[in-house]
Amino acid sequence: MTDFELMRELQIAGSSKMVMLVMDGLGGLPMEPGGLTELEAARTPNLDRLAAESLCGLSVPIGSGITPGSGPAHLALFGYDPLKYEIGRGVLEALGIGFDLHDEDVAARGNFCTVDEEGLVTDRRAGRIPTEKNVELVKALRGIELPGIQVFVETVKEYRFVLVLRGEGLEGGLTETDPQQLGVPPLPVEALVQGAERTAQLFNRWIAQAREILANQHPANMVTLRGLAKNPGLPSMRKVYGLRPAAIASYPMYRGVAKLLGMDVLDTGETFEEEIETLRTYFADYDFFFVHVKKTDSAGEDGDFERKVVIIEHVDELVPAILDLKPEVLIVTGDHSTPALLKSHSWHPVPTLLYSRYCRADQTDEFSERGCSRGALGRFPAVDLMPLAMANALRLAKYGA
Amino acid sequence: MTDFELMRELQIAGSSKMVMLVMDGLGGLPMEPGGLTELEAARTPNLDRLAAESLCGLSVPIGSGITPGSGPAHLALFGYDPLKYEIGRGVLEALGIGFDLHDEDVAARGNFCTVDEEGLVTDRRAGRIPTEKNVELVKALRGIELPGIQVFVETVKEYRFVLVLRGEGLEGGLTETDPQQLGVPPLPVEALVQGAERTAQLFNRWIAQAREILANQHPANMVTLRGLAKNPGLPSMRKVYGLRPAAIASYPMYRGVAKLLGMDVLDTGETFEEEIETLRTYFADYDFFFVHVKKTDSAGEDGDFERKVVIIEHVDELVPAILDLKPEVLIVTGDHSTPALLKSHSWHPVPTLLYSRYCRADQTDEFSERGCSRGALGRFPAVDLMPLAMANALRLAKYGA
Repeated sequence: MTDFELMRELQIAGSSKMVMLVMDGLGGLPMEPGGLTELEAARTPNLDRLAAESLCGLSVPIGSGITPGSGPAHLALFGYDPLKYEIGRGVLEALGIGFDLHDEDVAARGNFCTVDEEGLVTDRRAGRIPTEKNVELVKALRGIELPGIQVFVETVKEYRFVLVLRGEGLEGGLTETDPQQLGVPPLPVEALVQGAERTAQLFNRWIAQAREILANQHPANMVTLRGLAKNPGLPSMRKVYGLRPAAIASYPMYRGVAKLLGMDVLDTGETFEEEIETLRTYFADYDFFFVHVKKTDSAGEDGDFERKVVIIEHVDELVPAILDLKPEVLIVTGDHSTPALLKSHSWHPVPTLLYSRYCRADQTDEFSERGCSRGALGRFPAVDLMPLAMANALRLAKYGA
Repeated sequence: MTDFELMRELQIAGSSKMVMLVMDGLGGLPMEPGGLTELEAARTPNLDRLAAESLCGLSVPIGSGITPGSGPAHLALFGYDPLKYEIGRGVLEALGIGFDLHDEDVAARGNFCTVDEEGLVTDRRAGRIPTEKNVELVKALRGIELPGIQVFVETVKEYRFVLVLRGEGLEGGLTETDPQQLGVPPLPVEALVQGAERTAQLFNRWIAQAREILANQHPANMVTLRGLAKNPGLPSMRKVYGLRPAAIASYPMYRGVAKLLGMDVLDTGETFEEEIETLRTYFADYDFFFVHVKKTDSAGEDGDFERKVVIIEHVDELVPAILDLKPEVLIVTGDHSTPALLKSHSWHPVPTLLYSRYCRADQTDEFSERGCSRGALGRFPAVDLMPLAMANALRLAKYGA
């Protein structure tokens, strides 16, 4: 169900509150056949108890076999069909760092990388340079000028930056330059749609100048650009669901997604404790809270099974603090799976529970991949979560007579 | 599956028989967390035994989180996408009482209601006046004339009547006048689409005259109108499935839906025994039977958990009488859930079993929300039921070579 027409028609004003706790990359895999996943190995007494009173299932972010990026995966969680609404990573990063993106802007996510003497990529993340170095390099890159165009370069974190071109007649629909492998040169930007040729040229011109400026800055002696696009202008969650939504997330990209959907992005800290404290502080002021935990994904990406287990256990310890606030609906899920075994995002569906007084609990008493696969929600599209949350919060009227 | 093209192409003539037993509002919720639902609390040895030989699952009438009205919910059971085919309640009621609705007619479902001296609604059902009083009031309302338009007023039951306007240039696409709450006045009819303004005016004119006629008829001193629309003209089940379908239902609205889909609506009584007797009488004459039990829904709407349990148990006792007729396919389901806890329709999926010689029974041996959630059908769209019934009746040919 991504029928916003239906949501707009059926939404009911109310004071009930929903919390969606997203552990990024939550789903996992056993390291050995027959073993336990990260979530199964973790001791999660609070989540298991909650599962017993919840409706459980495995959510499919995009479609069977499709491994989602973080942007599309989060869109799906909020009920936006990710195949319909595409957001460039550049837009997400720009919004995430609070950049004032205009409608005509084309934004790109930039990575500092390392190339050898022949221009072949040897490190796609330039040895994860510290943020201070990034700030210094970005200052140098701001010297690049393009004819008739405003250029913005902004530090994100470590090896990541944002490049925004502003001016008349710019178009999205461009290829990326990150070759996604080592030993080959970065690719040129190419137009994917008619009318984007000039914009592609402008980006290529900028890259050529950046290459010269960075030539002696080993390891960050080159850049790649990804997700070059405009702001797609999505309908806001306020309109779609009639909610006052807020986001509690420390990482720029997730703050960016939230902003794009019209959520208020709350100031918070880097730890989950601080996020919960933020939730408590603002609990009276909103009726939908997106609470994001990044570190489960990072541990998965690093292939660190044990660290992912520890992070999950830590989140579990703080679940009672959320329940103490007595939200009418609490969802615990992930945006996608990031099994340590694969050291990357994966296509596997994501353990999910929905708790409410009216959820019709199934017999799952273990919050895990196996437990949730026995849940009454079965294997369900992630876009179904928001309509279910709305229903369980008694915020949807009957359809038809 | 609402692909009627496929059904029309693959349908096979045959003599196999299907019975779809619909317990209205069957699905429920525990009154206390961890408790049993109405269906789980009911002693249903016959349905449990049948479930053990059946394919079971939980059917989703419209979509995740969407609470359906009776009309859309039944359309889904018969394989018609309820988001594609919208039927006004006026049309349903008119057809339900056997009114000869023409294609250009606009029909409204009317309620007698009570308003105070300031015109504010104090009882949306006028104290559920007896049907005899309704007949008397309808007679008075028949005196209202509109310029160039034929007006029909017909008693349905208790506080409910049907109003039909017939004439050239009438349009559906109108708002309802029932404010759905007390202490406010009925709303005016407004046009939702261009071209419906004149029809809205005619309805408002009729309402103004009705108000005068009823002024001294406390408690039925005013009316509200709902579901003002034309007959949408749905493809018939005979064409779609190649079936000779019959409906056994005592309530007007369900008879109305059945008629709309081209079912023969059989004369029957108010009790389930009488409905089964009707099924037996006509069993040779049709190959698809829709058998409707209303009282499960009424008990749920009244918040009467125990009464709903008793009604389910009563239905269970008569299941062997259906099996004695040896239909090739027997489906037992509901159109939606009506948990006594919520005293209203709800979004929860509906326990469903499909029995046939070829159903590939799963391991569910309990006809209940929990039992069906473990069934091999899982959580499935209600529109899939008819194609499954057709297949299990060996009435669908192979698709492709």
